[in-house]
Amino acid sequence: MIKRGKNALFEIVNQTKAWEGTIRLVAEKAGSLKSLSEGIEEVVFTGCGSALNVAWVLAPTFQYYTGIKARAVPSADCVFFPDTIFTTGSPTLVVPISRSGDTTETVEACKSAHARGMKTLSITCNLESQLARMSTESLVLEPASEKAVVTTQSVTSMVLCGQMIAAIVSKNGELIDQLKSLPAIGQTIIEKSHALGREIGENESIVKFAFVGNGPYLGVAKECQLKIKEMVVLPSDSYPVLDFRHGPKSNVDEQMLVTVLMSDSAREAEIAFIKDMKALNGVLLVLCEKANSEVVGIADYLVEVHSGLPEFVRPILYLPVVQFLSYYRSLLQGQDPDSPRNLTYYVALEGAMGN
Amino acid sequence: MIKRGKNALFEIVNQTKAWEGTIRLVAEKAGSLKSLSEGIEEVVFTGCGSALNVAWVLAPTFQYYTGIKARAVPSADCVFFPDTIFTTGSPTLVVPISRSGDTTETVEACKSAHARGMKTLSITCNLESQLARMSTESLVLEPASEKAVVTTQSVTSMVLCGQMIAAIVSKNGELIDQLKSLPAIGQTIIEKSHALGREIGENESIVKFAFVGNGPYLGVAKECQLKIKEMVVLPSDSYPVLDFRHGPKSNVDEQMLVTVLMSDSAREAEIAFIKDMKALNGVLLVLCEKANSEVVGIADYLVEVHSGLPEFVRPILYLPVVQFLSYYRSLLQGQDPDSPRNLTYYVALEGAMGN
Repeated sequence: MIKRGKNALFEIVNQTKAWEGTIRLVAEKAGSLKSLSEGIEEVVFTGCGSALNVAWVLAPTFQYYTGIKARAVPSADCVFFPDTIFTTGSPTLVVPISRSGDTTETVEACKSAHARGMKTLSITCNLESQLARMSTESLVLEPASEKAVVTTQSVTSMVLCGQMIAAIVSKNGELIDQLKSLPAIGQTIIEKSHALGREIGENESIVKFAFVGNGPYLGVAKECQLKIKEMVVLPSDSYPVLDFRHGPKSNVDEQMLVTVLMSDSAREAEIAFIKDMKALNGVLLVLCEKANSEVVGIADYLVEVHSGLPEFVRPILYLPVVQFLSYYRSLLQGQDPDSPRNLTYYVALEGAMGN
Repeated sequence: MIKRGKNALFEIVNQTKAWEGTIRLVAEKAGSLKSLSEGIEEVVFTGCGSALNVAWVLAPTFQYYTGIKARAVPSADCVFFPDTIFTTGSPTLVVPISRSGDTTETVEACKSAHARGMKTLSITCNLESQLARMSTESLVLEPASEKAVVTTQSVTSMVLCGQMIAAIVSKNGELIDQLKSLPAIGQTIIEKSHALGREIGENESIVKFAFVGNGPYLGVAKECQLKIKEMVVLPSDSYPVLDFRHGPKSNVDEQMLVTVLMSDSAREAEIAFIKDMKALNGVLLVLCEKANSEVVGIADYLVEVHSGLPEFVRPILYLPVVQFLSYYRSLLQGQDPDSPRNLTYYVALEGAMGN
């Protein structure tokens, strides 16, 4: 008998090896990345599902470091609503993101970009894929490919890949050094996160989940939400931190885990938010660089990453604890984290894209 | 005894009067809107909660009609992560949106824009508000102001306001005529939607909700999700249509109402999606201009608006049925739609914005 979730667990525990491979691989392409980005006025990161969450982390990160406008867009909108995204006369680089490299609407988004004369730089984990073959340039993260249906190490690696691109394009040597430190720091975090993620995952009094983050952390929050939806099949939300106070907070009670992905820039507002959620009896998981005594006192669960890294570098360090949490809750509920119900390894849409 | 939800019901039923007032009011400001938009290279629509959902409808609509880049951004990101949104040397107009005009982070976003030398055009329903006083120009939709905590007519009116701005800036007379036809068409839709919304709302076998839409309909889907969260306090999601197939669909079963907000551009893919959801036993509510026989056969509930209007004009016609649905389910559950638990008329954050 094969143990349920064997692949997912292996991929969560060992993901820093994929990160190392990713850093090496992107660094080797530095020359072509620099020339590809010359004269570019806007970058559009596009994908579906987890890959769209990666785009949500990368767009603010890329614009922050390079000063080049960047946005995250669902692949289908590039195909069906291109005039809401692309403007004429503004040289744009499209970055299609897809683990399989064969997701129908992301492949179509790539074709649509080429038809408009735009260059593309795809991020995928599959060398034999359509995206790898058709894009102007592609970064194929084979060390990050996965056997499980659910994405874990591929997500963190594709984020790291995009961060490396931002560092290379902005010629930011300090950032490259910081990114290179992530695998070693990540290994420690993963070891610390394993037992805690399991403890939270096995707390059956929690039956609904909310993840909140600002700036680049909104994409991480969306990815956490998706892990719960895929592996645990329980109600799960993601919101910008302060937006959660405008309506969605009406759902908070002692059965909801509210996970706060803390930044540096919005730290004060996030601490006020944490107090507010505790007053509503929410169960709090706080992920941060380092907590103050107030947060230590309030948080039910706490991960401090102690990375010494800036907020735009840290996002992938927050994911492992939620990957573990989802994994163990999934097992507890008798599901198979490797192969959740209703899902396939990638989504192909036969004849649904009008071509 | 005051009837629960009296104000919300009045505001849903009579919202086309607010639409008429909105059209008149924006048309009167045509001259100053044209001069305000001269030389602008990007428009940033920003808000929190429902107002952010309005921004999500308006950004693609504005870019589509004007050819000027537009994006929707949470107010807090304008304050805490401005370098992920604004670029130097690109003349930008910021459009802060807030019913009360006093939402803390949206007021701060407005200040932050002014500090960067940008012009602002606020959309609010309150003449005495900070936003109305401080913005470069403001559109104060007093006929759309509300007594209920939950936003209904203010949302549809603020969307219509932004559509009018797009029409004026792009000097699109045909679009203005189309927008002017919305109150009369809307009145018919509201009458048709009332009984159906009540029927769905009182179907207690439905205990979770998903709303999906592409392009400008994603913002509408987000607003539908928020109405459920605020008034009904049950699990509720929103996604781009095809993204829903990447993970979240694992939650679909006969207890989930899947509401599809149909566009024209992605119609074929949306019909394929509808079939897919039915195969998973989801309960389907389809909102569209006109259904084909296949959709008529599959949909459990159907609203055809028969407006003769393009997809970027129709979004507010899809909202009333979900407003009614939320209202009646809220009543059935013994809640007060006028004043949901944990919520206030607007959100003020004391000292949490670091100033």
